[in-house]
Order: sequence, then structure tokens, then C-alpha cells
Amino acid sequence: MTVRETCLKAKENLSAISFAGEEDMNKMLAASAAALRTQAAYIIAENEKDLQNCTRGAQFADRLMLNEKRIDGIAQGLEKLIELRCPVGEVLEERTLYNGLHLRRVRVPLGVLGIIYEARPNVTADAIGLAVKSGNAVVLRGSKDAILSNKAVTKVIKDAIREAGYNPEFIQLIEDVTHEGATQFMKMNGIVDLLIPRGGAGLIRNAVENATIPVIETGTGNCHVYFEKTADLSKGLSILINAKTQRTSVCNACESLLLDRSIAEKYLPQIVAALRDKNVEIVACEECRKIMPELTAATEEDYATEFLSLKISVKVVDGVDEAIAHINQYGTHHSDSIVTEDKAAAEKFLKEVDSAAVYVNASTRFTDGFEFGLGAEMGISTQKLHARGPMGLKELTSYKYQIFGDGQIRG
Amino acid sequence: MTVRETCLKAKENLSAISFAGEEDMNKMLAASAAALRTQAAYIIAENEKDLQNCTRGAQFADRLMLNEKRIDGIAQGLEKLIELRCPVGEVLEERTLYNGLHLRRVRVPLGVLGIIYEARPNVTADAIGLAVKSGNAVVLRGSKDAILSNKAVTKVIKDAIREAGYNPEFIQLIEDVTHEGATQFMKMNGIVDLLIPRGGAGLIRNAVENATIPVIETGTGNCHVYFEKTADLSKGLSILINAKTQRTSVCNACESLLLDRSIAEKYLPQIVAALRDKNVEIVACEECRKIMPELTAATEEDYATEFLSLKISVKVVDGVDEAIAHINQYGTHHSDSIVTEDKAAAEKFLKEVDSAAVYVNASTRFTDGFEFGLGAEMGISTQKLHARGPMGLKELTSYKYQIFGDGQIRG
Repeated sequence: MTVRETCLKAKENLSAISFAGEEDMNKMLAASAAALRTQAAYIIAENEKDLQNCTRGAQFADRLMLNEKRIDGIAQGLEKLIELRCPVGEVLEERTLYNGLHLRRVRVPLGVLGIIYEARPNVTADAIGLAVKSGNAVVLRGSKDAILSNKAVTKVIKDAIREAGYNPEFIQLIEDVTHEGATQFMKMNGIVDLLIPRGGAGLIRNAVENATIPVIETGTGNCHVYFEKTADLSKGLSILINAKTQRTSVCNACESLLLDRSIAEKYLPQIVAALRDKNVEIVACEECRKIMPELTAATEEDYATEFLSLKISVKVVDGVDEAIAHINQYGTHHSDSIVTEDKAAAEKFLKEVDSAAVYVNASTRFTDGFEFGLGAEMGISTQKLHARGPMGLKELTSYKYQIFGDGQIRG
Repeated sequence: MTVRETCLKAKENLSAISFAGEEDMNKMLAASAAALRTQAAYIIAENEKDLQNCTRGAQFADRLMLNEKRIDGIAQGLEKLIELRCPVGEVLEERTLYNGLHLRRVRVPLGVLGIIYEARPNVTADAIGLAVKSGNAVVLRGSKDAILSNKAVTKVIKDAIREAGYNPEFIQLIEDVTHEGATQFMKMNGIVDLLIPRGGAGLIRNAVENATIPVIETGTGNCHVYFEKTADLSKGLSILINAKTQRTSVCNACESLLLDRSIAEKYLPQIVAALRDKNVEIVACEECRKIMPELTAATEEDYATEFLSLKISVKVVDGVDEAIAHINQYGTHHSDSIVTEDKAAAEKFLKEVDSAAVYVNASTRFTDGFEFGLGAEMGISTQKLHARGPMGLKELTSYKYQIFGDGQIRG
């Protein structure tokens, strides 16, 4: 099938999920989870072939690899969706207009979701699960490296849904993994309602630049922690170390520390010691290097870089205004945190930092659909249109107006 | 100034409006409305020059033309915004998480709005007013034909805001009205947060195909009225004539009538007579022509055409399922109405027609921000992402998460 035929097939079968009731959605999810477990050996065998073809190094292979434990985790993810309420059909607003028209604003699925992603085959099942519980059709386009794993996971889930008595063709996997195929996918206007790229900065940029269908930018996170002049050092160190080192490859990890000038001299040595204790590589501004000349100099580019590793940039700033300006200029509007005991500084930071999630005295690592209580997550939006921050089931819906009259015409 | 410099200037001055209080926004609006009235002669003189340069016919010139009455209408539009509540700062959600983090989801402006539009210079003032009351900066790019009018309106409003004691530079007009300038504007990633094209289908298509910044598609309306088999003819005729003829050049006007087979023979002659009485040109399907052979045959293209004139396509369909399928295939997901006395048919139509506004026994002409009680309108979205249907002040906002901790870290 061509990319267009694949997308059309999902759209043609949209009603199989968009008009399904919650009970049927849950049966599809339960059947899929069970099948992933019983068919684990088949999935692992297909994944093994992908791994054998993979020439992109150990870190990449680790992300690609599936084993029984990981498959069980994926199945658990689907089962967790059963407990969440399906948002479709929720009446968001209801009122009677001056002329007697009764107006209802009702939540509806977005339609056909397009997901384009990199090596991790768990995204295949996660995205299908979220699509099922939000009433959306889904077209998946994973990477070439994971094609056999993705085919296996999709086949197991679709077979399970079919055996449970439902039409699974609202789920489609694009098997054309060429670059041209990806570009075609990004231009499926009138067929695919929304494209969600999940992966590195290059993939996101490619989607933003080439897609003619609506895109939600997700998951680039150049996140900051700012020690304001009233910062409690022990709180700050604990937040910084958690945000930087608890997991480095994720978008809500801290990449840059801003340090108020008035406390820089006093705190910098302890901060550096704590970071070094965790093997964090430090690049720092000239002000820092006046205090600790042995520090490596940071470049302009460092301040704009999402390291995704044990590396951090450190910069001295003149008060909360400069901190905010720096974050708004160099950040990616994801998650930023102020460490302060001053309410006014906290309020200013919360108001003026233009990011999806802004924290006072807490780690940026909490920006996550599960931590925020959404129960699931399709990604973290760093744009302001439609959804910002973690995207759960509600963020995968739109709405329509339903208007009830008895012959009203406009005067 | 280049297009980029103009957009950057709006962004650099965003805080002048995004952090303004509601009282200050209202003072800006009042001052602008007053100035439009006192400077009407200047605006009309500049508009006169645009009209003299205009070679695009009487209908186009009428849309371009400003007189005292129209300027007063524009000023009234700004004054009406004063009465509406500014949505910025609204707490949409608030809860304490398991770990004591207190999470607030707060409404914030989108940022910098880009508006690209055709001849009507009233859009200039309307868009500025909506931007002011929603806390957004705005970059306007009107057509070449209206450039002097747009410059005059923008100058009068910005001078008035400045004289009232505020910085008006969050409002910018692109004076480069070349095609290349428009294309540059559509690619202002990182500077312009949202592009709203307001105009004909060609402009919308151009924006969708060329923009790399997020776009909201607005205002193409191939709207349907469907007479279901239980339709009350007199209600239906009144709705049809209103939807088709009350104003033909608008996106919520009816362009196509669907007629249930079981009532076609009985009702078609009266429907045709009523349409002809209003000078509506009819193109009809073969089934209609079997009943009334004198009718002109409709083409496939007719069914997909937004006539925006006294012309309608008429098609016989086999029941509500075929009506829904036809609308979802040929329509533009704007507004569609069923005329029926059957509750089940009405419910099915409301659920399955994939449009922003779906009506039972009412004219499609009601799809409008004022009629829906939003108090204002930037356009009518026909896409499902972010906002659907009339876009008022709330639809011009995003949100951010503000999280209050006392040292929480992720385990």
C-alpha cells in the first residue's frame, strides 16, 4: 500500500473507534494487552531480526530492544488506560441562546492521528492504546530500524482486536520507511488531522518544516534551574541534582543552571562539588570562571543545547529579570524552575517565564503526564497551540457544537 | 523594516500587552475607538487613494471602501470588547498532587498572532482589538490593495494607545505586501506563534501549504441543509431560504440542499419555486431532473463548491446515512443542518456529521461568534486542532502549568 492508501484506510475505518463505546474500547485494550503477553516470543523473535540489522551502536540498540519484561511493561501501559475515563462525549458547555436555540459544546475525537517516531517500538503500542481510548484512528510511522518489531506489535494488537469482535483497521502502520514516504505522510491534508512527531530535535524540525498538516511539537527540553538570591542551598542542590542526573536522556532533565550574582561566589564551589560528585561535566560563564578559574568556558551554543547527558551549562545572572530573559531566549519553552524563598520573585518567574511548566522549588523532572495525574501521555507539547505540556487523552480530542432548534432563522 | 524585523518588533514588545491588566486593555480599546472617530476624515482620505488605485471591480471596491458609518461600526466593535472579560489569568484547573506539589493550569495569551487577510480594512482594527483584549501581540499583513487604509487605521490606533500612556509596539503592520513577504511571514518560527489567514479559499490554501508556523484554517464553508424524510416542509423552506439567501457572501451560508428520496417527488417543486422566487440558480442531480427535467445538471465539482452567491446544488439522497456520508465527503466541516421531526435521525446527524457546528431545525447562518454568545470573533475555524467553530477571546489563548513545591524531587 502507498502511504496515501494506508492513511485513507485508517480514515475510512475511523468510525470503528470514534463511535465505539467506552466498554468496547476497554475490551480492545484488554485483548491487546493479553495478546502482547501471549505473543511475546513472536514479537521478541521479530525484534531480534531488527537488532541483527541494526548498525547504530549499543545505546540505540538498547532503545530498540524488546524482552519479556519490556513487553509486560507495554501491556501494563495498555491496561492502565482501561482505568482512565474516555473523554469523548463530555459536554463542555451547554446553554440556551436568546432565540431559543439550545447549544451544546461536546468533546469529540480529533480524527486520524499521525505519529512519526524513532527507534523505540514501545511507542507503537502506547500510541495505539491512547488512540483507542480517545476514539481516534491512528497511522504509525516508525523508523526503518524498528520496522519488523513495529509490524509484529501492530499485527498482534490488530489480530487481538479482531478476535475480540471489532474492526481493527482504524490502526495502520506505514510500511514504506523511506524518507519520501515520511514526507508524503506529512502532507496528508484532508486525511490525517494531526501529526505528532516523537523523537529528537531533527525529527521535530523536519516535521515542522515539511508538514502541511497540523503538527504538535513535542519533547525538546532545554530546561533551567535558577537559584535566586534567597535560594535555600540545600533545597536547591537536591532539586538541581535530581533534575540533572536522575535520568539524563529525557526532555524534562535540567540542562542549564542560572545562579544569581549575589550568591554566586558563596554557592558556586559547593554546587560544582555536588555536580562533580555525580560525574556531571560543567561548562560555565566568565563570571563563574572568575570564581573558579578551572571551569571550562561555555559557548553561546552551549546555552542553547539540550545535552541529554551528564553535562550542564552554568551562568551567573543579575536578578530574576535577567534569569527570565535568558530562559525565554535560550530555552525550549518546556520546563523551568526557580529556587527561592521570596514570594515576589517566585510570582514573577511563574508569570514571565514562557514555558509549558514553570516550577517554584521543585525538580523539572515532574513534567510528565503520569506525574501530573493525566494517567497517560502521548508526548509533551512545547508549542502553545491546542495543547501545552503533557498530552493525555483529553489533549487528543477536539469538540463540536451541536445546536437544537425548532425552525430558527437569522434576522 | 523587513518582515522579520517587523515580527521581531512585535515579539519584543509582547509584554506591553501580555502583562497588561484588564483595566489598561480597556483604556487602550476606548482610546482607539475614540481616535478612529475623530480621525475618520484622515482614514477616509487614505482609503480614497486605495480606491483610486483599485482596478479589481465594484464588488471588491465595496469591500475595500470605508466611510464614516463603517468607521463608526469599527469603533463600536472595539467598544464592545471592553464589556467582555479578559480571559488571561483564569485558573482552568488546580489540584495538589500525591507528593504535595500544588499544580495550577492558568490561561495565558498565545503570544504573537499573525493575521494575513484580504481587502477589508475593518479586519485591521478588529484583529488589533481582539489581540489587545486577549493579551496577544499582533502582526498584520493585509493586501496590497488596502495598504494605505491599513497603515492609516494602524497609525491612528497606535497613536491613540501611545497618547493614553501605553507602549503600542506590540501591534505591527507588515508594509512589504509582496508575495515573497507573505511567504516569509508564514515561516516566522520562534517569533510568530500562530497564523490566522482570513479570506478566500486560495489564501487559506496558500497558508496551509506554505506556512511552517501553526495555522488555523478559517472560513471556507460549503454548508448543507438536509431535508430528512420526516422534515416539516414549512420549517425547512424557511431555514433553507434563510441559510441560502439572507447573506450569500458569508462562510455560514448554505451551498447545497440534500433531499431525502422518499419526499423528493412531493417537495421538490415547492422548494424549487421558493428558491426561484429569491432568484437562486439551481443545479441538480439526475434524480431531481427526473422529477423536474428543466433543472440544470449538477457536476461533481458543484457539490464541492462554495458558491458564495445566489446558487445552490440540490441532491437526492437515500436516508440519513447517505446524507452524512455526502456531507463528510464534499463539505468543509463548517456548518450543516438537518430538518427533521425524528429524534433518532437528529441524534445520528449530530453525532456523525464531522463539522464544527451541526444543527437540528435551524439555519446554518447562526455559526458566528456573536450569535454563539462569544461576544467577538477572529474567524471560524474549520479544523479540529486548538479551536473549532467561532474563535472568540478564549480561543486566542493557551495555558501554562504553574507548580508550587517546597523542595520536591522525583524518586
